Amino acid sequence: MILKENDHFEESLTISEKLYQGFIDLFKDNNPLHTDESFAKEAGFKGKVMHGNILNGFISYFVGECLPTKRVIIHSQEIKYKNPFYINDKLFFKAHVSGIYESVNVVEFKYEFRNLIDKVVAKGNIQIGILI
Amino acid sequence: MILKENDHFEESLTISEKLYQGFIDLFKDNNPLHTDESFAKEAGFKGKVMHGNILNGFISYFVGECLPTKRVIIHSQEIKYKNPFYINDKLFFKAHVSGIYESVNVVEFKYEFRNLIDKVVAKGNIQIGILI
Repeated sequence: MILKENDHFEESLTISEKLYQGFIDLFKDNNPLHTDESFAKEAGFKGKVMHGNILNGFISYFVGECLPTKRVIIHSQEIKYKNPFYINDKLFFKAHVSGIYESVNVVEFKYEFRNLIDKVVAKGNIQIGILI
Repeated sequence: MILKENDHFEESLTISEKLYQGFIDLFKDNNPLHTDESFAKEAGFKGKVMHGNILNGFISYFVGECLPTKRVIIHSQEIKYKNPFYINDKLFFKAHVSGIYESVNVVEFKYEFRNLIDKVVAKGNIQIGILI
């Protein structure tokens, strides 16, 4: 098996204006929490809250491009949003292999995204299959 | 509460070339399963497999734009990929309210995406908070 229990991965991600606007252009989620500064502030946030699913797009990149093999497919994903993130935030992504099921070529990861002040922004798990 | 147990929602989604290419441009997941027809076929698929996380982007749109209130925020999401989908597939999305926790303004949904031959492509659940 090309992955081993506790293998660690670290990446980072900046929520650029281009990424934020590109996400809106692609998926048409113009909810005011994401697009209306005063709405977001009235709801108790410090500014427009970025779309949590930007992080799921990043997870696609992580699985597809950052592992030691390209012969992978995602079986399932779970994400829990713990704290909001904002435009221009830099997020730090850490993942580790939390389970290996060698007989069925399945690998599980636990991951989290933290912001610059080390708060957990989101965490979850991913199950992938290794294509044989 | 603006949502009630068993409230149903239906949407559809076409995996256009523009959506597929836009996802790659945004998130840089060029894994060969998604971009190399012969690689995907050798792995047992009928063509390039579309990125599952396109569906998570759609879920952002569903929660942000298709509910009877815009005062919502996603708490958590889970998705299980059951069957691949391909370029130009039309997918049918159904969701229903599977749980209401009125004292904390939380609503849960179960959802699924089916393709034109009624196979489940993906299914999962979403927990949202209603902003008060």
